[in-house]
Amino acid sequence: MSPVRIDSHQPTCLLYRDLHGKKPETVVEAKGSYVYLDDGRKILDACAGAAVASIGHGDQRVIQAVTAQMTTLSYHHTSRLTNSAAERLGHMLVGDRPGGLSHAIFLSSGSEANESAIKLARQYFVELGESERVHIISRNNSYHGNSIGCVSLTGIPSRRRHFEPILMQHTSRVSPCYPYRYKTEGESDEAYAQRLADELEVEILRVGEKKVAAFFAETVGGAAAGNLTPVPGYFKAIRKVCDKYGVLLVLDEIMCGMGRTGKMHAWEWEGVVPDIETIGKGLNGGYQALSAVLISQRVVDGLKKGSGAFANGQTFQCHPAAAAAGVAVMSIFESDDIVITCAKRGAELRQKLVENLGDHPNVGEIRGRGLFLSIEFVKDRETKATFSKGLPIAAMLDNAIFDRGVSVYSGFGKGTADGVVGDHILFSPPLNISSSEIDELVQAVKEGVDEVFGSQAVQQELAL
Amino acid sequence: MSPVRIDSHQPTCLLYRDLHGKKPETVVEAKGSYVYLDDGRKILDACAGAAVASIGHGDQRVIQAVTAQMTTLSYHHTSRLTNSAAERLGHMLVGDRPGGLSHAIFLSSGSEANESAIKLARQYFVELGESERVHIISRNNSYHGNSIGCVSLTGIPSRRRHFEPILMQHTSRVSPCYPYRYKTEGESDEAYAQRLADELEVEILRVGEKKVAAFFAETVGGAAAGNLTPVPGYFKAIRKVCDKYGVLLVLDEIMCGMGRTGKMHAWEWEGVVPDIETIGKGLNGGYQALSAVLISQRVVDGLKKGSGAFANGQTFQCHPAAAAAGVAVMSIFESDDIVITCAKRGAELRQKLVENLGDHPNVGEIRGRGLFLSIEFVKDRETKATFSKGLPIAAMLDNAIFDRGVSVYSGFGKGTADGVVGDHILFSPPLNISSSEIDELVQAVKEGVDEVFGSQAVQQELAL
Repeated sequence: MSPVRIDSHQPTCLLYRDLHGKKPETVVEAKGSYVYLDDGRKILDACAGAAVASIGHGDQRVIQAVTAQMTTLSYHHTSRLTNSAAERLGHMLVGDRPGGLSHAIFLSSGSEANESAIKLARQYFVELGESERVHIISRNNSYHGNSIGCVSLTGIPSRRRHFEPILMQHTSRVSPCYPYRYKTEGESDEAYAQRLADELEVEILRVGEKKVAAFFAETVGGAAAGNLTPVPGYFKAIRKVCDKYGVLLVLDEIMCGMGRTGKMHAWEWEGVVPDIETIGKGLNGGYQALSAVLISQRVVDGLKKGSGAFANGQTFQCHPAAAAAGVAVMSIFESDDIVITCAKRGAELRQKLVENLGDHPNVGEIRGRGLFLSIEFVKDRETKATFSKGLPIAAMLDNAIFDRGVSVYSGFGKGTADGVVGDHILFSPPLNISSSEIDELVQAVKEGVDEVFGSQAVQQELAL
Repeated sequence: MSPVRIDSHQPTCLLYRDLHGKKPETVVEAKGSYVYLDDGRKILDACAGAAVASIGHGDQRVIQAVTAQMTTLSYHHTSRLTNSAAERLGHMLVGDRPGGLSHAIFLSSGSEANESAIKLARQYFVELGESERVHIISRNNSYHGNSIGCVSLTGIPSRRRHFEPILMQHTSRVSPCYPYRYKTEGESDEAYAQRLADELEVEILRVGEKKVAAFFAETVGGAAAGNLTPVPGYFKAIRKVCDKYGVLLVLDEIMCGMGRTGKMHAWEWEGVVPDIETIGKGLNGGYQALSAVLISQRVVDGLKKGSGAFANGQTFQCHPAAAAAGVAVMSIFESDDIVITCAKRGAELRQKLVENLGDHPNVGEIRGRGLFLSIEFVKDRETKATFSKGLPIAAMLDNAIFDRGVSVYSGFGKGTADGVVGDHILFSPPLNISSSEIDELVQAVKEGVDEVFGSQAVQQELAL
């Protein structure tokens, strides 16, 4: 069978993300760092489809691995059976017990991974006889997924507002580590980190010191506020508070993990290890839907001492075809030095963004790690004033840059500063993007920025 | 690359479902109705891996379709782009607007589909200005998935118990339609259906008639209580109550849909249509992780009148490779008359089960539709007394039948009658299982039943 083609003039049967907007364009092919549209345009995928295509698109090695796996075994249920692809991927990820993480659960989506992490944290304490631990603390300006449990932890007002009354009730959120806006003048990194750790401690005590099961955080913030990067010592201070009260530290590395920051796990930058880590996206580069929960021996031992059975289970858990894609992608990470390449290209992209846009009057900060970078835009560099709520700077930039053949991720775009106002665009290209592709990316961004900030709408607002 | 092989003597890095149990066996191949284990055993997959492998394993047409799709386009993000495979699959499923269902969202897992259905029902009412609708009613003896929202609706005590305090608070459950146990003597089907509809109405009024957003039900019950099949008129009476109070009817057909009952949608048996339907499993036969939410025009129109944007979105939404598998499987459904075949083979399996086991003193009921059948076992046919909580009849049968080379689905097994006691085993083979494979299945079940009910443990309990 050949790839599916349809008449793109037919009315759609899909519920698009925006029912009032124009019809999405059709992508017909993807190779390396590019996607190709049905109107013939070639687009540099500078966001890797939301930080997914870690090794670029169309790598024949992965496709062959998936085909070979499917030819032998596409699927089985895990109630009494296992398969070699999932076993192997488990060994590749936690066989050497990075940071004490010893076991994996393979699922399909990042949301499923975080849902499982929520349940795992809860059940761990039930098994230990600490059933009163029902509360989970997360952070503002965070994104943890779309299912009920995940939205309950997410700190983006627009993702929560319709659903507040149906979310988990025992959750609360503390401040993220967001030095550009919230580190006070003259405050050292150390003092800022301690202030945030103190805030977490106060929140734990407010809830009740035996009532908190877990603290959830993206190690490097993702789409919610544009790559919020912790100050040195932040996670060490957080880990200390968690340990003081026996709270599990769950790091959501679905977006920032798997090499994207220039290290395999983003927590390697922080000198701490999580009790539970969730990964997805770049894990298999989008070739197949795959996510995972990585679990420390401590948590596994807790389950073993109790019922010995995590009350969770998905039909597509340990899906052989998806796991085979993961094995192939992780093999390519090794053979092609993907993580080291990412670190190098990340430094290059950052330098070129700084050179070309660092002095722009509306560029507030260029931040992030590895190939996980954002630009936060402001109305005024001195005061860090944001553009007004009604002016969709991030979406305008996204469009202007896309028109120049480059796809960036504006994500939630608006709401960077506090969930309501503030604008950023995010870059998360394939980890093996070439230097010349980086030049192409930066050129399009520069032109897009010039267009948007030269536009009448923005000029009017700037004149106010 | 060849399929992944590992040394099965290595300690695992996977968190198995049962940490105290023995290591799962390794499946190395699957073809047609069979899976093959690494010790050389050939197992008839009489549960299709939990009602998944709808067209059997290893169909080259699907594998080729996935390979072709991946070679061109494996993945892209849906924020501004669409792809032909997902568009086509949308047309195949709801292009002719079955029961008024007009739009689809494609996700990876059944849990994700139900999570999205929960959010969709909620947001629909927010858009209409009926924000007070926060409550969802589901049924006891039901299974809707594993994430927080799904567990909140699920009526299986063992899946809920660790998590009660962290579940959604505005939910409640009414009785399922379970005539074998709960239709009273002399009560007509019509009267029983009305009694259950009245119970739903009373519950809606208890909650507040403007406070309920949706009623969730599996059209034919799945693993929780063994193919609970509605009496004639049940869903018509339920639909009437939903309509009276403006409550959305959400039918979970993740397990029972896509041909399994001998009709494409299980609701076609009932003379009602849902406002939202969730599907998965058999939709693409396990070749790729795929699920979907099918949405009626009524709900789409509600969103359009409001914000026009469902506040939901998944990284792997409309995954091209997964959608291509779905297109291939749905094409095979058509070319190979899969649904008609299922209806025929379902009648055959039922007849042979009745012939061979219908008179067994511990067979309480053989029930279900199409190739979605269960046997409920009892201690006493007259009184319908269940076996004691400590005697895991379903698991014992599962093992005895597996030892004879046939895999059935005991699912949650224990708790059939009321969530705590009662036993069943479930059959959900590939929809194109052959007649001789059905013979093999029935023979193994017969022998397994003889072994288990002849065992000392069971005989002792029977003698009490």
